[in-house]
Amino acid sequence: MTDPADFYRGRRVMVTGGMGFIGSNLARRLVELGAKVIVVDSLIPEYGGNHFNLDGIEDRLTLNVADIRQQSTMNYLVQGRDVIFNLAGQVSHIDSIRDPQTDLDINCRAQLVLLEACRHNNPATKVVYAGTRQVYGRPDSLPVSERQLVRPTDVNGINKVAGEYYHLVYNDVYGVRACSLRLTNIYGPRQLIRHNRQGFIGWFIRLAVEDREIEIYGDGTQVRDFVYVDDTVDAFLRAGASDACNGMTLNVGGAQPIAHRDLTALLVQVAGSGRVRLVPWPAEKKAIDIGSFYSDSSLIASVLGWTPKVTLEDGLRRTVAFYRQHLARYIDGPGGGPIAP
Amino acid sequence: MTDPADFYRGRRVMVTGGMGFIGSNLARRLVELGAKVIVVDSLIPEYGGNHFNLDGIEDRLTLNVADIRQQSTMNYLVQGRDVIFNLAGQVSHIDSIRDPQTDLDINCRAQLVLLEACRHNNPATKVVYAGTRQVYGRPDSLPVSERQLVRPTDVNGINKVAGEYYHLVYNDVYGVRACSLRLTNIYGPRQLIRHNRQGFIGWFIRLAVEDREIEIYGDGTQVRDFVYVDDTVDAFLRAGASDACNGMTLNVGGAQPIAHRDLTALLVQVAGSGRVRLVPWPAEKKAIDIGSFYSDSSLIASVLGWTPKVTLEDGLRRTVAFYRQHLARYIDGPGGGPIAP
Repeated sequence: MTDPADFYRGRRVMVTGGMGFIGSNLARRLVELGAKVIVVDSLIPEYGGNHFNLDGIEDRLTLNVADIRQQSTMNYLVQGRDVIFNLAGQVSHIDSIRDPQTDLDINCRAQLVLLEACRHNNPATKVVYAGTRQVYGRPDSLPVSERQLVRPTDVNGINKVAGEYYHLVYNDVYGVRACSLRLTNIYGPRQLIRHNRQGFIGWFIRLAVEDREIEIYGDGTQVRDFVYVDDTVDAFLRAGASDACNGMTLNVGGAQPIAHRDLTALLVQVAGSGRVRLVPWPAEKKAIDIGSFYSDSSLIASVLGWTPKVTLEDGLRRTVAFYRQHLARYIDGPGGGPIAP
Repeated sequence: MTDPADFYRGRRVMVTGGMGFIGSNLARRLVELGAKVIVVDSLIPEYGGNHFNLDGIEDRLTLNVADIRQQSTMNYLVQGRDVIFNLAGQVSHIDSIRDPQTDLDINCRAQLVLLEACRHNNPATKVVYAGTRQVYGRPDSLPVSERQLVRPTDVNGINKVAGEYYHLVYNDVYGVRACSLRLTNIYGPRQLIRHNRQGFIGWFIRLAVEDREIEIYGDGTQVRDFVYVDDTVDAFLRAGASDACNGMTLNVGGAQPIAHRDLTALLVQVAGSGRVRLVPWPAEKKAIDIGSFYSDSSLIASVLGWTPKVTLEDGLRRTVAFYRQHLARYIDGPGGGPIAP
């Protein structure tokens, strides 16, 4: 396939959710590669958008604050984009339980808005959707390939898979080229760590950096896989540059599945701070727990040549160093919400 | 399991979409069985609700016109219901292509409204959801069991599967007992035949009754399975009366898969009117065609003891006789929409 380094030079690229965790890392890389980048973000408080995420590159891209639920706005913004990286979403499972309709609005309705905008105003574009491994729910067997049945365990997982399916239908039926990456647990610089409702790994890293106690549920033997954000960005770049993945869902999983207790031990060791305590499962968490999970990423390896490059230890080291340097920007920055207990 | 004839006597039962095709047949049967029935229907023009569907039993049940998208209304109406048969939905694939957001609103948002109403106001109820085999999309192999991957080919199929998953999550996480029946092509009295946007079988029957030409696409060798509505009602009754199916999706498929050309030949023969013509596939239909499809219903047979009883020939005979007698009520009755060409 084309080297992304060549593919993106001079391309007009949109990143929705581009001030968030993965979106901003992707936007930064695209700017480095010489792409003409527009970042679209709603900057809804408590979500992942953070001005500091684009620190130092603000004058090398266009920032457009907008909500992708707004049809007329999106009809305009999609025009002329060669590639659209579609990362805008509500990612909190906990929030989806409290307010399922807002989750539906952002993760389903907004995706239809974007895709309808493309269908009618830019059918030649390519859309890469940020899916999630959460759609699988509790796995039948490990590792989990794309052939396993989808069985989400919460409303957020359901809405995310509906959003994914829309992309595949618009690819198959309307010819708006699209694919979905089912991301496992992603970590790295620029992740939201103001509260603990958007995935545990960023929160654990914050606790370690602040020399606080990390609580893990049960005996800590549940296994997960992790992908460093630079590797995740590489997967998006490859998907956006290739037509081989059109209409496909591709797992993006880590190379080293690891138990929670080993992960946290490694984190505390790398950080040189923090400590770990095992606590009993809270009932409401146990109800949506899926046991151990890790992905089979052989499909994306064969279709796009993607494999993760950054080891967990190295990735944690880089991430801890980033938050040590910029912690204040991530716990009480602009648009900041309350800090969870 | 309990004989439904005994289970439903004196039970308080709600049927959403209860003036529609399957809902009204179900409501009629429940009244016969001695249940206390409330029918909830939005009577949106062009959808399947039809006053004549409850002809003769209006004084033996309660009719409440309401839209299940209305949270406060549903919060009230779900209270005290032992079983809720949830059949309200937007069932036109063609309409979902033209207006995906309305489809989302009815098939996703409204389902969350109903389930939230149950969770907070009647968590002890049982909900049986009308799912669809359309969620499978183009099958990998035949017959199609519940183990096949979901891969809808249009927005309606996506929203229907999201609606189904919500029910399973509310069962698993909130203890609101629920299951989903993935219905194949259902036919019989009281189906909408005013236009051809809600499934082809009702439309074919109308054309035969009116002695018109039935067009089938391609060479007519594509295979489907069909279930007569009385058998479908029996599946709903069994699912509502049993806890063995909680949290499950169950195919409801026909016993005699048949090619379109053989189906239409049988229909013309049974009706003694109408004729068949093969026409080339319209491009926009071909884009969402799924080839041959028929369901494996062995799971519901083992879990609920359900098997279809009415042969295709007998079912078509009864259906044709019904529409011969009541045709005017179904092509220009109250709430009627335009008749398609």
